[in-house]
Amino acid sequence: MNLKVNKNRLWQSLTKMAEIGPGDNGGSCRLALTDADIEGRNLLKSWAAQLNCSHRLDSMGNLFIRREGNNGKAPVLMGSHLDTQPCGGRFDGVLGVLGAIEVLRVLEENNIKTEHPLEVVVWTNEEGVRFSPAMMGSGVFSGVFKQSEIFLHKDNNGVSVEQALHNSDQLGSEACKSFPIEAYYELHIEQGPVLELENKTIGVVTGAQGISWSHVTLNGQSAHAGTTPMNYRKDPVSGMIQIVKGLQEIIKEQKSSLYTVGGIESQPASINSVANKVLFTVDLRHPEDAILKIMQQKFKSLIDEVCARENLKSELNNIWYSPAISFNKSCISKVKIATEKLGYSYQNIVSGAGHDACQISYVAPVGMIFIPCKGGLSHNEAESISPENAQAGANVLLNAVLESSVIN
Amino acid sequence: MNLKVNKNRLWQSLTKMAEIGPGDNGGSCRLALTDADIEGRNLLKSWAAQLNCSHRLDSMGNLFIRREGNNGKAPVLMGSHLDTQPCGGRFDGVLGVLGAIEVLRVLEENNIKTEHPLEVVVWTNEEGVRFSPAMMGSGVFSGVFKQSEIFLHKDNNGVSVEQALHNSDQLGSEACKSFPIEAYYELHIEQGPVLELENKTIGVVTGAQGISWSHVTLNGQSAHAGTTPMNYRKDPVSGMIQIVKGLQEIIKEQKSSLYTVGGIESQPASINSVANKVLFTVDLRHPEDAILKIMQQKFKSLIDEVCARENLKSELNNIWYSPAISFNKSCISKVKIATEKLGYSYQNIVSGAGHDACQISYVAPVGMIFIPCKGGLSHNEAESISPENAQAGANVLLNAVLESSVIN
Repeated sequence: MNLKVNKNRLWQSLTKMAEIGPGDNGGSCRLALTDADIEGRNLLKSWAAQLNCSHRLDSMGNLFIRREGNNGKAPVLMGSHLDTQPCGGRFDGVLGVLGAIEVLRVLEENNIKTEHPLEVVVWTNEEGVRFSPAMMGSGVFSGVFKQSEIFLHKDNNGVSVEQALHNSDQLGSEACKSFPIEAYYELHIEQGPVLELENKTIGVVTGAQGISWSHVTLNGQSAHAGTTPMNYRKDPVSGMIQIVKGLQEIIKEQKSSLYTVGGIESQPASINSVANKVLFTVDLRHPEDAILKIMQQKFKSLIDEVCARENLKSELNNIWYSPAISFNKSCISKVKIATEKLGYSYQNIVSGAGHDACQISYVAPVGMIFIPCKGGLSHNEAESISPENAQAGANVLLNAVLESSVIN
Repeated sequence: MNLKVNKNRLWQSLTKMAEIGPGDNGGSCRLALTDADIEGRNLLKSWAAQLNCSHRLDSMGNLFIRREGNNGKAPVLMGSHLDTQPCGGRFDGVLGVLGAIEVLRVLEENNIKTEHPLEVVVWTNEEGVRFSPAMMGSGVFSGVFKQSEIFLHKDNNGVSVEQALHNSDQLGSEACKSFPIEAYYELHIEQGPVLELENKTIGVVTGAQGISWSHVTLNGQSAHAGTTPMNYRKDPVSGMIQIVKGLQEIIKEQKSSLYTVGGIESQPASINSVANKVLFTVDLRHPEDAILKIMQQKFKSLIDEVCARENLKSELNNIWYSPAISFNKSCISKVKIATEKLGYSYQNIVSGAGHDACQISYVAPVGMIFIPCKGGLSHNEAESISPENAQAGANVLLNAVLESSVIN
């Protein structure tokens, strides 16, 4: 059986949703639990009602739209988020929710019943813009965050998460906590350039990178650019250059590893003085925790070695560590098999960004599906995908979900 | 004949002068043509009067203290400046003037007459702090600057150079322009660490470095640190690293060359984004113009090569070029012979900083003498030299001047 979703209907749904909280430049602005966000949820619920689905909210405002199956069995979940960045695109998160609704529509019009109930989930405040942190609803659901603490977080106007949930009528009676889940699938745009550049329709997501963030300060000695010979200098710029070169070597040793030095600032930044201080940021990533930790260790040794050689003093502050995540092998396999059955070009890919799926992977078997987005652009109103790829992604979602939920 | 100056008298003069416009931390503050600067000049003139010397001012306020010789002959000049940085040291410039006065005292007490008249010169506004540019008085004298333009430059209170000269009674009737000069000698602290680190008493200054200043901008493309593989990035930080490494190679190829990257700033400086722009400054120096120009050309090619490889766009803006200066061979030789006669350890050295001597070298034979300063520190109240080295420097000045001025 090789079911497909309705390309035009899916695209119309995406277009209709984008009209709620419209941006000035073709994108959307639906910050979590604002009127626009609630209007989007209401539109979704109106579509769910046409499919004879029930819905419920938990205490974090996570919205579950349920299509019944054999009720003794754990449901198969699919979803993502409807909230956006302030000048966000139309597809980040939205595709995962509306793709899932389109799956339900296809099952309904084909009169297909599944053993496992199906639930379309809208996780609250994935973007983390109005309230920090990101992936909030899925994070509380999976126990990564504590609801009592999260409830106290406030937006810029002093409104707490709890108040916002209450005011928007999204404070559900059901406790926000995990329950038995057969599988969770999330369809998402890649938010990176790889699939487009590799000319692939589908990314079979195998997990998410571990991330290590560091602030580095190198202290040297300010000196006159004209009167101080090279060998008498304690130049933190020279140290920084060697450390970044060393990082490039560390990256070369480890396939799939990434480093980014995004922020650099020298002080006092005078054209004719050797700097006395350089501050820079380092973002290290790898899909495997053990390897990321080795990289971090090598990075630390590298700093010590360079500073000893260059007569500098260093401060290394590891400000954040997010462990790598591997998705469920069976779910990954079901995504891959569905993709192959449908005849789409694909490749395995590790998510560079965080997703609700990462949080859910702590409490349930998880699979993710990526489709290309134009130029890798996201968190931008110009975010763009093709209707064909949207359909392809939803087709893979449909078929993977059917594999997990078992047609009866 | 191996005359020496009086160490204690020289040191007392330096101490006395430092008490005028005293800094809070042991240094001096005598900005050009302020009351403190004039008080310093008046103290100097009182010392000159005891030596039966005449004095005159030119239209830039350059002060000439004259000891007669055979008046048909061109004078031998020695001097420097008495103005200081806002929190300046006691010796920068001052040593060259008071060392010269000490030379006159020794000649007077030993009843020595010279064929060539001797003149101690105080150049106006060497520091360039109150009025821009630096080396102003010597620059107009040598024709590097035009007096009519310089006269219009204003300080932070809107007072012009011309007004300040008038108000302070330093606007001399003699036109500020060069006249026949047998030789000009300037004794100065090194303002760098070389002599101290090499344990040398005297630096025989052979000239001043050529200087090339550039602003470089590298434009890349901002990208997500997690979703953008290394080979898809256009990372201006990576380009900057390669350019600075390349600069280090260019420096290695050329003895006595210097590079300084003092200012670096990445934008938007986000820890989890590849930067889209890096701005940095480059200061290149070499004692020979031809070589400095080759270095600058190699630097330009390097930028083009790196940007082509890394898919970046560059802007290279050469904002200043100051040609290298070679001092007069005969003057250099006289300084060296005097140093050797006196038995001081020495080495040849190229000045990294600008000095009045650099300007005068365009219109007269010039020699310079450096002595060590503690830790290379200058433009700082903690600027420090030893009385022994001050004496050694003045001894070399005395003997070099005697060689040029011919005892009769």
